[in-house]
Amino acid sequence: MTNKKEINAGILIIGNEILSGRTQDTNTSTLAVWLNSLGIRVQEVRVIPDVEETIVKTVNELRNKFNYIFTTGGIGPTHDDITAQSISKAFNLTYGPHKEAMSILEKYYKPGEFNDGRQKMAWMPTTANLILNPTSGAPGFNVENVFCLPGVPSILKSMLGEISHKLIGGDPIQSQTINLRTVESEIATSLSKVQDDNKDVDIGSYPFFRAGKLGVAIVLRSPNKDKINKCNSEIIKFVKEKNIEIVENI
Amino acid sequence: MTNKKEINAGILIIGNEILSGRTQDTNTSTLAVWLNSLGIRVQEVRVIPDVEETIVKTVNELRNKFNYIFTTGGIGPTHDDITAQSISKAFNLTYGPHKEAMSILEKYYKPGEFNDGRQKMAWMPTTANLILNPTSGAPGFNVENVFCLPGVPSILKSMLGEISHKLIGGDPIQSQTINLRTVESEIATSLSKVQDDNKDVDIGSYPFFRAGKLGVAIVLRSPNKDKINKCNSEIIKFVKEKNIEIVENI
Repeated sequence: MTNKKEINAGILIIGNEILSGRTQDTNTSTLAVWLNSLGIRVQEVRVIPDVEETIVKTVNELRNKFNYIFTTGGIGPTHDDITAQSISKAFNLTYGPHKEAMSILEKYYKPGEFNDGRQKMAWMPTTANLILNPTSGAPGFNVENVFCLPGVPSILKSMLGEISHKLIGGDPIQSQTINLRTVESEIATSLSKVQDDNKDVDIGSYPFFRAGKLGVAIVLRSPNKDKINKCNSEIIKFVKEKNIEIVENI
Repeated sequence: MTNKKEINAGILIIGNEILSGRTQDTNTSTLAVWLNSLGIRVQEVRVIPDVEETIVKTVNELRNKFNYIFTTGGIGPTHDDITAQSISKAFNLTYGPHKEAMSILEKYYKPGEFNDGRQKMAWMPTTANLILNPTSGAPGFNVENVFCLPGVPSILKSMLGEISHKLIGGDPIQSQTINLRTVESEIATSLSKVQDDNKDVDIGSYPFFRAGKLGVAIVLRSPNKDKINKCNSEIIKFVKEKNIEIVENI
């Protein structure tokens, strides 16, 4: 269900290592949780290979579809890092040494160590806004509604604080989780009725297996806490009628 | 770089819980590793919400773009499980109780326990081929080149054996990893030359931080082991010239 006033985002994970299964992406959940806290809802994630044509096409499709796009990966020094040149192409901007980025990296490395590979990390759309990197020097960058971040999760995390003030979000998306000792099929019909009566709350139902026992997590999500509370009461009502144990309601 | 004869696949992760960051997707890497072993290369992953229109549109786009599509999630008993009805719509097929699936689930549950929610799990395109589920009864299904699997990772894994014989793959994609005690910028230029001379081997470069030390993993991928070996020799040559420590070459 879509809130018409919502601010949304797409995430673009760039990297063959995710598609090959070699590396487990964790940046999606990091970005999604952070964006939710700013009132921005992630509507789509795409994982694509390190292929310029694919990156250009996908960026241009997504940046017109969502309020914000966050890319991860492909901004390092090696031949397979082609995000910066691809973004330049997508926006028809000059790809070249970015003055401020060059200056940052020049200071970051010892004299004589600012080699070609390191200089490549300062190549990007020359008019991009930088996203400072407190962890490892090489900055990310931002063009219009597209924010380009590195793929290494710890470095990505360290750069989010830099961006928050640049984003205009909506009301933070709140959530409540009710963990029940039951199976989904026992509550499916009742839960469906609650969803029908509360169309502007997202109700998700997720089976879990924890400490040797089966359960179901019902997750209520909305920017409006009152609506979540109303939904919560209706669910607790049928749960009690069915004598289902409530493990948690948080 | 794309091998023209390659067999490829797209993965479609369906579920608000991944987009909200609540749940970390692990099915992508499970599917990708398994598909690689069958000689099928994953070219794109999309994560989309539980919205019928979005599922229909995305399935129709991807099934025309790749040899195989694998969907995960949304085939359970609750209101937010709408994959089966969406796939029916995408293919213009009747959505209804699938005879064989009804029969399987009827036997799986005790008499009197085959309630509405459980019956819903047998609703799908009525002409679909089933994907048997050795773990929890409810089958997945397959229509043309689209294979629909559950979201719960352990159940998904248990169903892959059922599908392998239905897929026509290429040569298995082989890989070799060289772990070096260096940083990417020290090897970027030399590695780029090796990539230029070996265009049909995918060379990836991934920094890592392990046991307190920085390193770079160079990953070579190709269906042709001889081409990987040639590439490997060229990399080892420049690595030795640069006096870089080789931690592993496996």
